[in-house]
Amino acid sequence: MKAKREALISLFTAIKEGKVDEDIIDLLMLINSIKGVYTTSSCSGRIGIIEEPSLGAKPLSRWLIKVHRPMEFEEAIDALKKANKGIIFLKSQPPILHVVAENLEMAKLLHQIGLSSGFKYTTFKVISNRYLVEINGTEYLTVPLGRDGKVLVSEEYLKFAVEIGNEMLRRGKSRLPRLYKNFQELKEKVGEDELFIALKREILGT
Amino acid sequence: MKAKREALISLFTAIKEGKVDEDIIDLLMLINSIKGVYTTSSCSGRIGIIEEPSLGAKPLSRWLIKVHRPMEFEEAIDALKKANKGIIFLKSQPPILHVVAENLEMAKLLHQIGLSSGFKYTTFKVISNRYLVEINGTEYLTVPLGRDGKVLVSEEYLKFAVEIGNEMLRRGKSRLPRLYKNFQELKEKVGEDELFIALKREILGT
Repeated sequence: MKAKREALISLFTAIKEGKVDEDIIDLLMLINSIKGVYTTSSCSGRIGIIEEPSLGAKPLSRWLIKVHRPMEFEEAIDALKKANKGIIFLKSQPPILHVVAENLEMAKLLHQIGLSSGFKYTTFKVISNRYLVEINGTEYLTVPLGRDGKVLVSEEYLKFAVEIGNEMLRRGKSRLPRLYKNFQELKEKVGEDELFIALKREILGT
Repeated sequence: MKAKREALISLFTAIKEGKVDEDIIDLLMLINSIKGVYTTSSCSGRIGIIEEPSLGAKPLSRWLIKVHRPMEFEEAIDALKKANKGIIFLKSQPPILHVVAENLEMAKLLHQIGLSSGFKYTTFKVISNRYLVEINGTEYLTVPLGRDGKVLVSEEYLKFAVEIGNEMLRRGKSRLPRLYKNFQELKEKVGEDELFIALKREILGT
């Protein structure tokens, strides 16, 4: 699998450079060590404040703060001071993993693992004969806070909204251990990938 | 296809009883008239205010208002007066359609139609050998407004948030004509379903 080789190289390189969310490195290593399966992108769940020039203009948006753990109220206040142009949103997003399967049968297994681990918005896409399973939760919060540097909410409200965002983030992340356990069982069934072991030794030296 | 027969009967019955969102009846009729394809559920996009007893407790939640067109500011104010218990959310959601395909090849075509019509969150699921394509947009807004009957936002902010929700709703709905056109092309390619014509005559009398 040429595609898996490339995916593993970029994963190990990203880990080496400290670019992978700490709290899902173990999970990513586990998934990629399974035969016939690999990840292409992932996020362990995050909360933050983002500025979007206009609605739907995602490519030009700018994070004022973005963390992969609950956000402190003071951090939100500080971040809002940097607001300048566009619509300001508070966003909380659950963990999301893109897992590629070699064939449809494996894709169905991955799909089942996502759902039974509590990731209710697990779906899949077909991209030029590869099956991409998106393991995704439903805990999305998108709260407009103001526009063009002007904050339109009170501190009391901001505290309330950040609390809800943090609680949703915790709920999303709380399913990661179950996901880990289910992938462990899959690994026991289908076996370890030798390419994973070889490339890991080569790039990470372990 | 026994499953399509059942789906058509419940669709036509729902239309007869006025239970289907007016602005996508034409689209649903078109899709269901195509050979090898049928819809199981759909929403033409909506905005509203909902009360959830606690985070994630969706089954017990209660809409204070829910409309399939932009919501007036005054409607939001009136709806909030009915708030009582739980977390109050303003929600805006894009159109969503669940389309079942007879086989994987057709599912791939439907998936492609969703994406190329601008529904960027089109995915699919496999449910006991049937392929369910979810045609979905990305314009989701979820804004906590208060808790236990107490509204924590100002009228100025509420107006701002409702405006953003309405704008997202309009963006989502603006893609429906393109989706219609793309399904028309699919129909020209694969042909009309005779079961659709027969059942439509039987139930709707046209």
